[in-house]
Amino acid sequence: MNNCIVAQSGGPTAAINASLAGVISGAKENGFDTVYGAYHGIQGFMNDEVVSLNDIDTLKLRNTPSMYLGSCRFMLPTADEDADTYKKIFEQFEKYEIKAFFYIGGNDSMDTVAKLSKYAKENDIDVKCVGVPKTIDNDLCVTDHTPGYGSAAKFIATTLLEVSHDTAIYPINSVTIVEIMGRDAGWLTGAAALARNEYSAVPHLIYLPEAAFDKDDFIEDVKAAIDKYHNIVIAISEGIKDADGTYITAGVAAEDKFGHSQLSGAGKALEYIIKDNIDVKVRSVEINIPQRTAGHLTSYTDIDEAFDEGKFATEVAINGETGVMITINRISDFPYATTLGTTDVNDVAGLVKHVPREWINEGGNDVTDEFITYARPLIQGEVDLNFKDGLPDYYDIKHLTNI
Amino acid sequence: MNNCIVAQSGGPTAAINASLAGVISGAKENGFDTVYGAYHGIQGFMNDEVVSLNDIDTLKLRNTPSMYLGSCRFMLPTADEDADTYKKIFEQFEKYEIKAFFYIGGNDSMDTVAKLSKYAKENDIDVKCVGVPKTIDNDLCVTDHTPGYGSAAKFIATTLLEVSHDTAIYPINSVTIVEIMGRDAGWLTGAAALARNEYSAVPHLIYLPEAAFDKDDFIEDVKAAIDKYHNIVIAISEGIKDADGTYITAGVAAEDKFGHSQLSGAGKALEYIIKDNIDVKVRSVEINIPQRTAGHLTSYTDIDEAFDEGKFATEVAINGETGVMITINRISDFPYATTLGTTDVNDVAGLVKHVPREWINEGGNDVTDEFITYARPLIQGEVDLNFKDGLPDYYDIKHLTNI
Repeated sequence: MNNCIVAQSGGPTAAINASLAGVISGAKENGFDTVYGAYHGIQGFMNDEVVSLNDIDTLKLRNTPSMYLGSCRFMLPTADEDADTYKKIFEQFEKYEIKAFFYIGGNDSMDTVAKLSKYAKENDIDVKCVGVPKTIDNDLCVTDHTPGYGSAAKFIATTLLEVSHDTAIYPINSVTIVEIMGRDAGWLTGAAALARNEYSAVPHLIYLPEAAFDKDDFIEDVKAAIDKYHNIVIAISEGIKDADGTYITAGVAAEDKFGHSQLSGAGKALEYIIKDNIDVKVRSVEINIPQRTAGHLTSYTDIDEAFDEGKFATEVAINGETGVMITINRISDFPYATTLGTTDVNDVAGLVKHVPREWINEGGNDVTDEFITYARPLIQGEVDLNFKDGLPDYYDIKHLTNI
Repeated sequence: MNNCIVAQSGGPTAAINASLAGVISGAKENGFDTVYGAYHGIQGFMNDEVVSLNDIDTLKLRNTPSMYLGSCRFMLPTADEDADTYKKIFEQFEKYEIKAFFYIGGNDSMDTVAKLSKYAKENDIDVKCVGVPKTIDNDLCVTDHTPGYGSAAKFIATTLLEVSHDTAIYPINSVTIVEIMGRDAGWLTGAAALARNEYSAVPHLIYLPEAAFDKDDFIEDVKAAIDKYHNIVIAISEGIKDADGTYITAGVAAEDKFGHSQLSGAGKALEYIIKDNIDVKVRSVEINIPQRTAGHLTSYTDIDEAFDEGKFATEVAINGETGVMITINRISDFPYATTLGTTDVNDVAGLVKHVPREWINEGGNDVTDEFITYARPLIQGEVDLNFKDGLPDYYDIKHLTNI
């Protein structure tokens, strides 16, 4: 038998199931007998949470947000540290007669792909391990961009456009701070700039983690923007930091087991700074969970690319590649054109791609036209979603719930 | 000349411009020469912020969220208190040869309609004053429901459905609290129940302002829900109160000039209660501004009714009625059928329609089937929105902004 298995790891995006649908479609086209799915990532695979995905409705799946297979947050130890885990995983590969393993995830998941492919090579085991990228954060190296980002960017830009309609109605000075996800990289927050059009300059100010945040400069920026625009909107990343690298937050930063700081309250912190220094009505809001799971408003470009990457991963495995991640290479901005490729997964695992400093203006309070040119093509196109009884008709996730 | 004028007041909804489009269409059909619009409500009218709306593209306008004409928060004094203001307003009516005034707003705006129509009658001035209801809160009396509510309810239910996909992915116990708008009435929060389907019981618990919140009961509710469902979602209104009527909030409640308490932090307050009493991962999020301005996901039923109510208001004025608000009367739930009517605006002004206590379960932690039957028809149907360059193609609001 020539079977394959696919799993998902890390946090949700609106496009990750499109990649799953692509893997399933590609696996069938490329001659795999059974395409298995493991629930809850590599952990669920070890626990035999394995199902056949051969009968999945891939059309419906590709428009469903978050992760049909569930997820895990599991940092695979090295084989030296924990031989038993590797023994278990490769026993599972043998049990299900798996020839290819596809892991859809971010840079932590690519670390898993790197370690498993290394182990397979060293032990002469024929299981190809291929990473399929996903993250709303768009912070994976080598690839031009990452599936999930375009849809999140479209939702953020649309929300900011709608916030511009919300804030413009009163003829009084006011400040609205919109906090956007992004611990280390400002790709999502920068996408707020896509909201600007011929009638709205919202967001008037943009702060990313890649440019040091200075409180005094910020107060001057806000005063100048109020003078010019009266009711202003500020887009900030949850991960903005001062010149010393200290997060700007009203809360306490703790660390999770991957070493990521758990932030809350950058928006609140700036709200307090304004309240203390400028006599103006101010509020802060977070876009929060919807920016990563709003399946009702996705980018067709993003969903289509996510599907294609999943499908391409099966071709790559059939062609004998392992220890690689699928990449998107941009050929042209206008017209937007890309090709798919692969990269050594070690060039991605555990690394972060930042917004280039030259794509942020000198004052550190806006993105440049280069950023806009980069991001604009990724939000193009809408998905024709089915609705049932007034709500999006998503693929059921009964297997993950308890009803 | 036989002109009319329309203005908007209070907070935004995704349907209020549909009512404006309806007024414009109806005014033309019903023989008004010019349909004027006043920017920034009755205040802008006094300041001569008056434009002709005869050339407005009503099709595009009806799909644009928030308020094309801008808004004001202005509590009209009585004529006894401030004769000059009335003199000014009725001079403006005369100047623009206005025979009918349409005010699209909530219960504060209906107070303005009541006072102006009373003054006109008492002074034998032929200006008909008609209120067109709008509020996401759905708390206006007499009418079955209020334009703006259905779209907000659809956005909330969709968001909760998407949150269910987001929370289900990890096989660990967790609590997600979703705070929804609604100071006094739980209509919006109750709409979260529409998210439930054959694979998801989200939200597992629902707390409205109409049922007294008890901390100890809440802790027991949450423990039981975690035992049964593991990762649970709780929908709460920003305005939940204890048996003494004290708001449950982590912040400080102040009062605005209408006597509304400015709340923040009911979600945070429950988050802290859980953290202090249950050993479980917990987070709280707010749906915030998008629930009232998400023009990208509206209810066709709502937008269509909002338009029809605006149009009907012009017929009502032509037929000589004044001091009334348009109402929707429900004929049947299945199939959903309604008629339009009018009510004395004094039966609406300053009053609040609460969710009936019998539409909340005995334990005060969920809505009943009666609520679902009521709310479900209001979120039906989607609007075919135009997009431009990846974003919704809304009507420009250049006249309200400063670019």
